[in-house]
Amino acid sequence: MFTPQPIGFVRSPYKDTAKVPKGLGAKHEADGVIEILPEFELGLTDIEGFSHLIVIWVFDRSHGFELLSSPPSDNRPHGVFATRTPRRPNPIGLTIVTLLRREGRLLRVRGVDMLDGTPVLDIKPYLSNIPSETLRRGWLADAEAQKADG
Amino acid sequence: MFTPQPIGFVRSPYKDTAKVPKGLGAKHEADGVIEILPEFELGLTDIEGFSHLIVIWVFDRSHGFELLSSPPSDNRPHGVFATRTPRRPNPIGLTIVTLLRREGRLLRVRGVDMLDGTPVLDIKPYLSNIPSETLRRGWLADAEAQKADG
Repeated sequence: MFTPQPIGFVRSPYKDTAKVPKGLGAKHEADGVIEILPEFELGLTDIEGFSHLIVIWVFDRSHGFELLSSPPSDNRPHGVFATRTPRRPNPIGLTIVTLLRREGRLLRVRGVDMLDGTPVLDIKPYLSNIPSETLRRGWLADAEAQKADG
Repeated sequence: MFTPQPIGFVRSPYKDTAKVPKGLGAKHEADGVIEILPEFELGLTDIEGFSHLIVIWVFDRSHGFELLSSPPSDNRPHGVFATRTPRRPNPIGLTIVTLLRREGRLLRVRGVDMLDGTPVLDIKPYLSNIPSETLRRGWLADAEAQKADG
């Protein structure tokens, strides 16, 4: 395996978990900054050309994990690998952000849902979509349908 | 930070890196299996309802990293965070697979590009696409256009 090391940190308007929009219909439109450490800045070369980035980060304020949990979207428990809960065997988070612009080693992005100060492990370009007609969203679609009915 | 631990391993037709389709137009349609360790099986509850999964894994046969590298798609170097190269500061890979079916703690999936035996760190449901009209693919789109012209 390997020893995770931060390549940078997130600057986000969210100072604690309660402030992050969660659950069905939650919009992640907050602007934030991904501040890459100086020693990794060269790794950003040509990132400006991508509209969307996959940010891989650490739930650094989450402790332990549960194999079953009840997400805010639903009152029924689901397996950890069928949810985005922070309490995961490996506390890795993933967010797809819109790259607004790069300023040196700062990436100004939209769509952050991380807490301020979150360590970032990796950034990858977002390259392609899944054909929409093939996408099924499991219990989340069910929960949305129930909410719409109710 | 945290100490990465495998939640399972990939069974893939690719036994070495040279066999994995790479570069422009590479199709990842290989079938494979994600075998979750028995102690994490409960975490798969309700995963069957999702058509696509985000698999986060370790480039366990990659060593070291380069901040600039020339991907197979292009002869110009790009920053590591603008490519999918295995040689990353944190050797984390990400693949979006189609879930064909679950058999107990085995997930039969399509679209693997990992080597056989790759350790898996996390699985998350794939929930939504980026609106296609907003997606820009940077140097990769340029390289594709040049290839089409040439």
